[in-house]
Amino acid sequence: MRDFLPEDVRRRRYVIDIITRVYQRYGFEPLETPAVENLATLVGKYGDEGSKLIYKILKRGEHEKTGEADLALRYDLTVPLARVMAQHQSKLPRLFRRYQIQPVWRADRPARGRFREFYQCDVDLLGSTSPVVEAELCAAVSDVLTELGFNDFVIRLNDRRVLTALLGAAGVDVELHGPALVALDKFDKIGADGVAGELTARGIGSEASETLMSFFNVRVGADSAAHSCDDELDRLGGYIRDEAGRAALENLRTIVGLAGGTRAAGRIRVDPSLARGLSYYTGAIMEIAVPDLAGSIGAGGRYDNLIGMFSRQDIPACGFALGLERVLLVMAERDMFPPELSSSPADVMVALFDASTAPHAMRVADQMRAAGLRVLVYPDAEKLGKQIKYADGRGVPFVALLGDDEIEAGTVTVKDLSAQTQHTYEQAAAGAAILEALRQRG
Amino acid sequence: MRDFLPEDVRRRRYVIDIITRVYQRYGFEPLETPAVENLATLVGKYGDEGSKLIYKILKRGEHEKTGEADLALRYDLTVPLARVMAQHQSKLPRLFRRYQIQPVWRADRPARGRFREFYQCDVDLLGSTSPVVEAELCAAVSDVLTELGFNDFVIRLNDRRVLTALLGAAGVDVELHGPALVALDKFDKIGADGVAGELTARGIGSEASETLMSFFNVRVGADSAAHSCDDELDRLGGYIRDEAGRAALENLRTIVGLAGGTRAAGRIRVDPSLARGLSYYTGAIMEIAVPDLAGSIGAGGRYDNLIGMFSRQDIPACGFALGLERVLLVMAERDMFPPELSSSPADVMVALFDASTAPHAMRVADQMRAAGLRVLVYPDAEKLGKQIKYADGRGVPFVALLGDDEIEAGTVTVKDLSAQTQHTYEQAAAGAAILEALRQRG
Repeated sequence: MRDFLPEDVRRRRYVIDIITRVYQRYGFEPLETPAVENLATLVGKYGDEGSKLIYKILKRGEHEKTGEADLALRYDLTVPLARVMAQHQSKLPRLFRRYQIQPVWRADRPARGRFREFYQCDVDLLGSTSPVVEAELCAAVSDVLTELGFNDFVIRLNDRRVLTALLGAAGVDVELHGPALVALDKFDKIGADGVAGELTARGIGSEASETLMSFFNVRVGADSAAHSCDDELDRLGGYIRDEAGRAALENLRTIVGLAGGTRAAGRIRVDPSLARGLSYYTGAIMEIAVPDLAGSIGAGGRYDNLIGMFSRQDIPACGFALGLERVLLVMAERDMFPPELSSSPADVMVALFDASTAPHAMRVADQMRAAGLRVLVYPDAEKLGKQIKYADGRGVPFVALLGDDEIEAGTVTVKDLSAQTQHTYEQAAAGAAILEALRQRG
Repeated sequence: MRDFLPEDVRRRRYVIDIITRVYQRYGFEPLETPAVENLATLVGKYGDEGSKLIYKILKRGEHEKTGEADLALRYDLTVPLARVMAQHQSKLPRLFRRYQIQPVWRADRPARGRFREFYQCDVDLLGSTSPVVEAELCAAVSDVLTELGFNDFVIRLNDRRVLTALLGAAGVDVELHGPALVALDKFDKIGADGVAGELTARGIGSEASETLMSFFNVRVGADSAAHSCDDELDRLGGYIRDEAGRAALENLRTIVGLAGGTRAAGRIRVDPSLARGLSYYTGAIMEIAVPDLAGSIGAGGRYDNLIGMFSRQDIPACGFALGLERVLLVMAERDMFPPELSSSPADVMVALFDASTAPHAMRVADQMRAAGLRVLVYPDAEKLGKQIKYADGRGVPFVALLGDDEIEAGTVTVKDLSAQTQHTYEQAAAGAAILEALRQRG
């Protein structure tokens, strides 16, 4: 887990502000949930591997010595959303569009762009099974990435039901679908040969395994040449005979068509090898990739049964999570942040001559702040050279000087550190003059 | 711990944005630290009562069954700041002005305006012992509260060394200073008689106790008539003979004088009964009160030895923490939020006629978003009346309709739900027309 020093925070806020602004443009509303959930709420939602990574909180007071946990740190933002929808349903709209940007915690072995505390930026639409939902979400996420300056991302798209149909068509037994999906989910990491080996290791017969692998002979992804979603859907249609599978294929075709009129146009690649690890997905699944990062910078899908686990009523839902840390990592490597973010903490520093002039320094600082400037008062009456050096080192462009002469005359002398010039102003007028100088400088 | 639904989040962000803007005006820079700290970092920093309220995190993996904790949730933002200053000193400025707005966790019995997860808004200045620091902090906090719309707050001011001197002057044994401070800290809650009783119960002799209580015969606070800080300092000077105590009194006088030229002018009350519970304070201590809330909405003080507990080098420091939940509580009760905060999630809803028109709906929504509007697409082709009712219920002022006629003509019909009128526009021009209508409406 990391500390974020001022420049880090400025970069994080820059990205979060853009994400917030874009999601609001799509009518999404903010939600925040506590860091801590009941342990029972989280257990069983993330698969066996996921459960091991949950941070558990010891019972308090006299129960502490039992060594038992009853609370846990949030593992993602989707399960808390499902709990909220069940718990506060009467206060929420029937169609709930929410975004949520908060940290989650996983006791994972950290890797590049992965940390134990990391922010997720979630956007979800609850209350409808329409493919318009998936298309709106792809549009919103594409809009976010485009506004951040990404121009080379793709959204890989698949459907859990298409995967089921492909597994069935290849002759994989139903009870081996789970293990087969775990193997397929590693396509990105271990390639086709690796997956074939895993399928064998997980007890899938060689004939079924070979047939299945033949379905994935066309690899698509961030690095492949753009290729028509319709062609890929046609190709998969050649293998799938059962009705549910064919309906899911047609649903994907509709999503791609709807997204064509939005910011997601040209971004979507139908990719039958996309499996997604989390157990709660029921329909479309999506992952966002950029060429220079292994793994995804965001992912999502449809989970129509999760809310029903907290409520008597199933509510259909679909969403995306962007990984803030990975977005920041790629943006830093590609130098995508505007230079202003590393700017100085203040426009003016008021220097301190001695204890007797301090009240005047405070008063002039107050006037300058009221004029709209960011002002700091140097707190110690040290040598003036040392004070000016501090301002310069921190990138503060102006230093205000108030000696006895200035105080008597009601003026203040303002040093421009980069131009190496100085002017004396009436105290009440100095703020506006500095503001104007900053404006001219751009 | 609570969920924050959209309107709650908008109110919280409104307050946080103002706090952020004001602190930046004083040259403070943002810092963020992880929710989780090593347990050893926190233990021993908050007194015995505080330690019991720390949420502890169970060890992971094979160590989980030991029932031991090695991590803990952040209890405040001051100890993490001290750790950061020690750990990242080479990357931080010699005089570090930082603000930090993040949640903290205490396993407390919740009371009015108190929760187990709550946000603190901290502002601290590290690296100087000058009274300019205290004055700048009082100015910044006063500026925040004034911008939020508070006009009746006071900053109670005292000094730990003044308290020590008063205890000494009253003849309280040095080893009983701690217990005496615990009793004094309850002045607000249990009154003078209560404190006198506690002093006796904690073994302080009746003569010392009576003398001590006589020092506090003038009660000041949020509810008392304004009264001169200088007079109160003079009065206290009458009891204090030792040099350290007299120096601390003069330091308070300087702080009050310096603050007089800032937004804190007229806000400060010297209050010798203010003790503050936390054990790390070494000098000035402050608490902010408003008449209609028992307890404080913010507090702070000087802690010159805390950073030295994490580093070989002591770094002087002083800061304020505003309690966001209490600020919000008072603002809600006083109806201080601007009405826009409860506004609708979107400017326009694009209705859906049927599946075949959906791609056109998506495209027109995209155009309107590009024009600067907040737009949602109704995802299901339900009866138009139901769709319009949904928009109206959510406070969305305009509904865009795209039937076959509009699609053929390249137009869109826009219904104004409050005026009960409708106009048909070229699709590319509709966004600008709605934006103009919203502007005229204010």
